Amino acid sequence: MKFTIDRDLLLTTISNVSRGLSQKTPMPVLTGIQIDVKEDKITFVTTNKEIAIKIELEKSDKVKLYDEGSCVVPGKYFIDIVRKVEGKEVEFTLFEESTIQIISDRSDFTLIAYDKTNFPTTNFNVTTEPILFDSKELKQIIRQTSFACATSETRIVLTSLNFKAQNGTLEITATDSFRLAKKTSKLDETVDILVNVPSKALEELGKILEDDSTFVKMYLENSKAVFEYKNIIFITRLVEGNYPNTSSLFPKETLFEAVFNRIELVNAVDRASLFSNLDNLNIVKFYFSNSNKVEISSNSSEIGKVVEDINLLNTLDNVDFQIAFSTKYLLDALKSFDSDRISFSFTGEIKPTIIKSVDDDSLVQLLLPVRVF
Amino acid sequence: MKFTIDRDLLLTTISNVSRGLSQKTPMPVLTGIQIDVKEDKITFVTTNKEIAIKIELEKSDKVKLYDEGSCVVPGKYFIDIVRKVEGKEVEFTLFEESTIQIISDRSDFTLIAYDKTNFPTTNFNVTTEPILFDSKELKQIIRQTSFACATSETRIVLTSLNFKAQNGTLEITATDSFRLAKKTSKLDETVDILVNVPSKALEELGKILEDDSTFVKMYLENSKAVFEYKNIIFITRLVEGNYPNTSSLFPKETLFEAVFNRIELVNAVDRASLFSNLDNLNIVKFYFSNSNKVEISSNSSEIGKVVEDINLLNTLDNVDFQIAFSTKYLLDALKSFDSDRISFSFTGEIKPTIIKSVDDDSLVQLLLPVRVF
Repeated sequence: MKFTIDRDLLLTTISNVSRGLSQKTPMPVLTGIQIDVKEDKITFVTTNKEIAIKIELEKSDKVKLYDEGSCVVPGKYFIDIVRKVEGKEVEFTLFEESTIQIISDRSDFTLIAYDKTNFPTTNFNVTTEPILFDSKELKQIIRQTSFACATSETRIVLTSLNFKAQNGTLEITATDSFRLAKKTSKLDETVDILVNVPSKALEELGKILEDDSTFVKMYLENSKAVFEYKNIIFITRLVEGNYPNTSSLFPKETLFEAVFNRIELVNAVDRASLFSNLDNLNIVKFYFSNSNKVEISSNSSEIGKVVEDINLLNTLDNVDFQIAFSTKYLLDALKSFDSDRISFSFTGEIKPTIIKSVDDDSLVQLLLPVRVF
Repeated sequence: MKFTIDRDLLLTTISNVSRGLSQKTPMPVLTGIQIDVKEDKITFVTTNKEIAIKIELEKSDKVKLYDEGSCVVPGKYFIDIVRKVEGKEVEFTLFEESTIQIISDRSDFTLIAYDKTNFPTTNFNVTTEPILFDSKELKQIIRQTSFACATSETRIVLTSLNFKAQNGTLEITATDSFRLAKKTSKLDETVDILVNVPSKALEELGKILEDDSTFVKMYLENSKAVFEYKNIIFITRLVEGNYPNTSSLFPKETLFEAVFNRIELVNAVDRASLFSNLDNLNIVKFYFSNSNKVEISSNSSEIGKVVEDINLLNTLDNVDFQIAFSTKYLLDALKSFDSDRISFSFTGEIKPTIIKSVDDDSLVQLLLPVRVF
């Protein structure tokens, strides 16, 4: 087995495929990248319990394939080597199934390959019809929703994002039961979908996707989701179980709406968060009593307090209302928006609050307030 | 007590003075910044067991002083507040000796002051004659030598830098007994000095000094060193005890000299260090057998090995020599130089090696090799 690849192309390829490496595992081979040269293609594969990734490169000026063969190379070391070598090309040779030589410029590395017989076989074939995403949009969806998933595995289904398609509309929902993020987008096809995709897997996928508006094809095969993007196939298992019905959380009636400049509010909440770490409360309070201002405050009994007024972009009538949020959850929600004018819909001091962009209602953030008054 | 200060000037001032804050202490007041307004000056002071810092600002367009008074403000919170506020100015008012109000733009912070009666008094006066440094040069000296000090306090004197002046020459030495850094510079005055200055204190001083060639005055008072730089006075205690006599370490005779391009060597050693973490050996080997090349190698029994040839900038005669170093110590030494041509003087495979710049011999790095052959 022997090949030569342009160093930058190789680095991009193995950095992407490394998203599927196991971090901690009793099976060292899962910390390796399987490399396979066959006919006119070279294939890189990683796999762990959650996800599997395959990247194929065709023979080209930048990819010269000399001898067929396959091996599993220690992932972390291979990436470190390719990152640090200074040559324009990297030459890779396997000797006797176990010794890998990597040459670039003056550097001559020898690596001991893993025993490839232990590397699990993944089926990367798909038989279903794909749903199409724009890569930039899918990357944005992941960024705007996945942070709201649960990190604790107490209710495993809440560590996933719920994908629900009906009548040409796709709804993606994430919730940890204290907050919820929901993104709605149009589909070109009319398909019915109801699956739970692990948020950690989607976050890795998000790191691979570029802002370049290439198609991403999503296939749903029994108990797994397969994403195809350029020369990359990304598989994640799905999470079994019923996702909670969250539609009842959305209030039918609104007391009033307040419109903010998002950046101003982010900075004010960020300042309010200065004191909130100490008591482990992390609370920021909003007090509305003025037609065009809100008082934002936070306090710690041991250190002190902060108060500031934020101008509203709309005018309120006759309002006397206070509410408190977790500063972290509020900042997460505010930072998920790309636009600058955002509206809060309040329904009660201890009832869910809905945050949306004024200009685009495809993204909804729902926050449960904290009862402090 | 009341004053108003330009926000950027205040941030620079308290960031600098915060280098003297205690990190962990049973006395919370030592995590505070003492602020004192008196006549036409405002003074900021911090102190911990090792160092004390005082910064004075005179009344000016940027510094408006209204009411005299003093207090100790929680350091970390004060800095975080000033860092995050958006106003051009910060207004600071003390109420009833214990409540501090900080206003900037729309933000209104209230902080609880520490009990100032517990804040230690530091004597910042000096009576001796100063030694003059250029700030840029002193910053460089600290960067080039302090890393070689011991971090363990087993031999407390090795955690300090030895300052030794005689006949108009100042020698600054740092060693942890495995390596040694020594910087020589000329003094304008003829003074005799022999003191040990804690390296941690000098590293904090180095962060305060700018690359601007302002004078730094160093005063040696009984058991402390006082540095005066612009409006800043920085005091550190000295370390008692006899610094080891290191001159005997420097070999009288040299076997041969090898001259390297520093950047090439740094990159090669950095690559060689890829495998060295695993075995906890951190060893890079040099093998000279060629008139104009050296083979650099490292290996790990479990992972593999790396070999590469580095061109020498000089030509060697009849040499057959190998030596090994700790990669970390070698990289530290190589990175301390600013120039690109550096020479290694070898005296034996298990004897000290001297590293110098070809263009400037004011800085000497000495490394003890590791016996591996």
